[in-house]
Amino acid sequence: SARSLEDVLKEKGVITEEDYKEIQKSSPIKYKLGEGFNFTSADGKFSTSIGGVYQLRYTLMDLDDANNTAAKQAQDSSKFELRRIKLVANGYAYSPDLTYKMTINFANIAGGTTSNGGLLEETYVNYRLLNEVQFRFGQDKVQFGRQWITSSAAQQFVDASAVTNAFVPGYDTGVMIHGKIAGGLVNYNIAGYGGVGQNTYRSTTDNAFAARLTVNPLGDVKYTESDVEYSKSPLVSVGADFYRNTLSATEVNTTNTATGNNLSFAKSTSWYGLGKGLLPAARAFSAGEALDFNMASVDAAFKWRGFSATGEYFFAEADGQTTSHKLRGQGFYAQAGYFVIPKKVEVAYRYSYIDPNRDAVNDLWVENTGAVSWYVNNQNLKVQADYTNVHKQAAIASTSGKNVTDDQQVRFQVQMLF
Amino acid sequence: SARSLEDVLKEKGVITEEDYKEIQKSSPIKYKLGEGFNFTSADGKFSTSIGGVYQLRYTLMDLDDANNTAAKQAQDSSKFELRRIKLVANGYAYSPDLTYKMTINFANIAGGTTSNGGLLEETYVNYRLLNEVQFRFGQDKVQFGRQWITSSAAQQFVDASAVTNAFVPGYDTGVMIHGKIAGGLVNYNIAGYGGVGQNTYRSTTDNAFAARLTVNPLGDVKYTESDVEYSKSPLVSVGADFYRNTLSATEVNTTNTATGNNLSFAKSTSWYGLGKGLLPAARAFSAGEALDFNMASVDAAFKWRGFSATGEYFFAEADGQTTSHKLRGQGFYAQAGYFVIPKKVEVAYRYSYIDPNRDAVNDLWVENTGAVSWYVNNQNLKVQADYTNVHKQAAIASTSGKNVTDDQQVRFQVQMLF
Amino acid sequence: SARSLEDVLKEKGVITEEDYKEIQKSSPIKYKLGEGFNFTSADGKFSTSIGGVYQLRYTLMDLDDANNTAAKQAQDSSKFELRRIKLVANGYAYSPDLTYKMTINFANIAGGTTSNGGLLEETYVNYRLLNEVQFRFGQDKVQFGRQWITSSAAQQFVDASAVTNAFVPGYDTGVMIHGKIAGGLVNYNIAGYGGVGQNTYRSTTDNAFAARLTVNPLGDVKYTESDVEYSKSPLVSVGADFYRNTLSATEVNTTNTATGNNLSFAKSTSWYGLGKGLLPAARAFSAGEALDFNMASVDAAFKWRGFSATGEYFFAEADGQTTSHKLRGQGFYAQAGYFVIPKKVEVAYRYSYIDPNRDAVNDLWVENTGAVSWYVNNQNLKVQADYTNVHKQAAIASTSGKNVTDDQQVRFQVQMLF
Repeated sequence: SARSLEDVLKEKGVITEEDYKEIQKSSPIKYKLGEGFNFTSADGKFSTSIGGVYQLRYTLMDLDDANNTAAKQAQDSSKFELRRIKLVANGYAYSPDLTYKMTINFANIAGGTTSNGGLLEETYVNYRLLNEVQFRFGQDKVQFGRQWITSSAAQQFVDASAVTNAFVPGYDTGVMIHGKIAGGLVNYNIAGYGGVGQNTYRSTTDNAFAARLTVNPLGDVKYTESDVEYSKSPLVSVGADFYRNTLSATEVNTTNTATGNNLSFAKSTSWYGLGKGLLPAARAFSAGEALDFNMASVDAAFKWRGFSATGEYFFAEADGQTTSHKLRGQGFYAQAGYFVIPKKVEVAYRYSYIDPNRDAVNDLWVENTGAVSWYVNNQNLKVQADYTNVHKQAAIASTSGKNVTDDQQVRFQVQMLF
Repeated sequence: SARSLEDVLKEKGVITEEDYKEIQKSSPIKYKLGEGFNFTSADGKFSTSIGGVYQLRYTLMDLDDANNTAAKQAQDSSKFELRRIKLVANGYAYSPDLTYKMTINFANIAGGTTSNGGLLEETYVNYRLLNEVQFRFGQDKVQFGRQWITSSAAQQFVDASAVTNAFVPGYDTGVMIHGKIAGGLVNYNIAGYGGVGQNTYRSTTDNAFAARLTVNPLGDVKYTESDVEYSKSPLVSVGADFYRNTLSATEVNTTNTATGNNLSFAKSTSWYGLGKGLLPAARAFSAGEALDFNMASVDAAFKWRGFSATGEYFFAEADGQTTSHKLRGQGFYAQAGYFVIPKKVEVAYRYSYIDPNRDAVNDLWVENTGAVSWYVNNQNLKVQADYTNVHKQAAIASTSGKNVTDDQQVRFQVQMLF
Repeated sequence: SARSLEDVLKEKGVITEEDYKEIQKSSPIKYKLGEGFNFTSADGKFSTSIGGVYQLRYTLMDLDDANNTAAKQAQDSSKFELRRIKLVANGYAYSPDLTYKMTINFANIAGGTTSNGGLLEETYVNYRLLNEVQFRFGQDKVQFGRQWITSSAAQQFVDASAVTNAFVPGYDTGVMIHGKIAGGLVNYNIAGYGGVGQNTYRSTTDNAFAARLTVNPLGDVKYTESDVEYSKSPLVSVGADFYRNTLSATEVNTTNTATGNNLSFAKSTSWYGLGKGLLPAARAFSAGEALDFNMASVDAAFKWRGFSATGEYFFAEADGQTTSHKLRGQGFYAQAGYFVIPKKVEVAYRYSYIDPNRDAVNDLWVENTGAVSWYVNNQNLKVQADYTNVHKQAAIASTSGKNVTDDQQVRFQVQMLF
């Protein structure tokens, strides 16, 4: 490519090698891997990176025919999909302590329908008083569940586990105090949220509360799966979190006919959505009552020399304010991966377990997933394929009937951050 | 931060101090406060600024319980909200006389529902023949109502007054001739619009017409509230405008069951939306008739040494083409603010008055609002809080019943332009 | 404008004229006509162009009153419209062989309704192994129909012909192998798609297949209409393509009450949408059956010294899998244009013909269109106006009745790429 002015001046001896290196750093425009092009103002007070995220996916779903009848056939599918298509801006303004993030996921509109309440994901302002004391205002991931907090672009499998989708609240709008203590040995956050989920705003006075604590005894651990960095020293992180919320009768969507919230754990394929349908009539929630939700999880992650393992356990309970009826669910997953070619090719296995209603029988949902991933350029450019056996007991089987179903799912995905 | 090439060459004496200053101006990339990063082509024919707008808001609404019954309780709310989240591109192309603006408000999709017809706000091309004679084509704010023309990011309170929302048309697509005469002493615009509002297109031959004239005897006055600039000399602006439109039976949405337009003044909480419901049966519009709308307003603004005052009066009338029935509404607001700490901290007060149907009784809507604002960096980074008493007479009370309601509203907002 | 550092150093003799020219080429930021601002990383591995597309349109539609009755009047319309408002990012990442395109059309949401399934148009990753062998994954224009493949910003008329809209599939998500052989003398592509159209994903195992071949005997011909470049030598291109798909009963939308796909040819104003309604009851498709679609087209284009001509013929057939009933449609258009002022002002004429059901009578749709276009800056900045006589026979007339309708349509459009 053409020589730049700095190249020419270095050749002519007008500037030195040291000058040259320093000048490169001062450039108002840079490319940052995983973030996109970065622009910085001459006074250093403003900086922004603008980038894109592509997750282009093919999914083959072979449904189990165990419950087939003449009138009802399981409908397999062969689907090409724009799974996530995002524009991301992040940077700082007025001061390096005042950062912002803006994530727009255009794939949230598909088939003419808007999912997740709208297009916006992380959309917040963060002010750092100290590393230990920071304030965040706006929409963010509710800091509940390690895998959920991990970017969808930094997953070990084609997508997060069914357990994570079944138990986390998702995104919400609110205010958070958080910080890193002792350089990241301990991280905490305490937050209040509107409480009805992504791009959806509260029309009652009930708000949600969440808190999370992580301990990283061997040094700060980033929220990414896979040891694509081939960590020379072992890394360990353990975390615990808690979430509580109250949803009114119109918000909780007991009948599944209206959408009163955009909380992940309340969707029809999640813990609450599945579990409430399995309550016997005598112990069901009444249509007009508000529910209190209390949820907690513990998790751990480990990485060393291309090997990585992650596990989480979730506990969740909903309590009817009028009937005092109770729904309790639980779930966990454990996954591990190893780079058979360091930094490039990884194989991974995951076991997922969901019990949407601990007091009901025949309602277990178990997944076994195997994956192979080619990290062409770290997490920024990768090609992944995974295979899942989706085992659902009769009460929640993929086609209604008296038999367990074992569906086979194959996914292939190209991910590019630019 | 690192030294740039210019810094190094100036130190070495290769270039002079004057060269250095000129070079800084020639940079193809700059940051412009309130506009974002700006890029200009080497030939100077193309330039664009790309920026973001965040309005992150918390609203506590305490509804009056005056009309409560056992069956119907006023539902207070505690709401965190992404109020406005915009990407804005503005610049010129092919010539500095051919400018464009593109504003995308991603907050227009929330709770799974699209408001304002779509995501686009200002989306136009402007050609300047002379400062005095300019042409604009595309979607723009209908130039009707001073506060409406003022950017939502340059308001003295957390948001515009209820009066403005109740009487202005909002955005519309059309063509405009406009200009600044004598350096802005007089500004005018004359426009034709589709006539059914933001991101919404006409399916009849009725179009809307609007004209506005402002006089600024002491020099051009920008459309911004608050005297955050601490004007050394007094600034005065007076304006008047007129709008007319005809809406067919399907467009006017007489039954409130279909959405035939996206005009602000026709929404259910606006002048027309409230007023038409208060017409006695004998004088009501018929379901099948078209309505002629004629609306006008006068306004004035004043700024000096941190003090600012603004006021507007609106008059509106709708006439049934078949029945010759008539609906007349009026409204006004007056507001004033003063910087108790110049350029930084302002207190402000506003009185708003809406009479949606001058021929009906008990239908007044009056708001009293007090605000405190901290302008961290002019209008670009500010923190605002305001308190409003929303007084609505029985015919339009916030909960139905025979009593007046006085709702209490507290809002807190962080605004950042980046 | 201010002198740049390169200007200053050239004047001072620090760098030579040759250095100066090379340095200009190395600039990390450039403006590319038709693409917008372009950014390239210092290592040359990443490059992106970000630009906008505006199509601002006015349409006057004067419907024929031939079928008017007291109860049913033809409703003329006078419409200002944001026809297409796009943000486009295209570039390469990690290697110049790995390109991507991302096109977001914000005009797809209007009147509160989302059309085309969502906002995304071209959204793909392309890997070039050789010029002759390239792979594409994601959403793209289905490569079927010359005019459809031609950008909406490179049309000779205000918009594509009714024939193109009536017979092409539109956008779809899938995987394609394609290449240019012998420097573009022959171009080919072979693709598999989900099969239910733009931003819409398959829930069955039927996928679509498409293939296209073009031959350019006098050298590669770009997909643009009009000879705005004033080609010194004649350019010729001929093409042929084929498409097949199977739509299940829920996807094919036989009743027009549900939207099962976003395929252009299946919309209510397209070949299949119009034609199926004209099948006699004894030969109609059954509500529960799947349909096989087979479609083909041939096309040719010619350009020389400001003259250009294009034509296409489409053949389409749908076959009921259960009833074996058949629907066959055909259509063609031919258009020619000439620059009366070379590179600036063009006049053009087009004849369009659609027979949505070859076995039905009185169902022809014929359009005659004349256009005048002013190319201010090539296809990047142009002003166009066209007039169309829309002739529809009684079975498909614009207002129902026993008479043919001849509607008059006048369009005016400003197009700006920035």
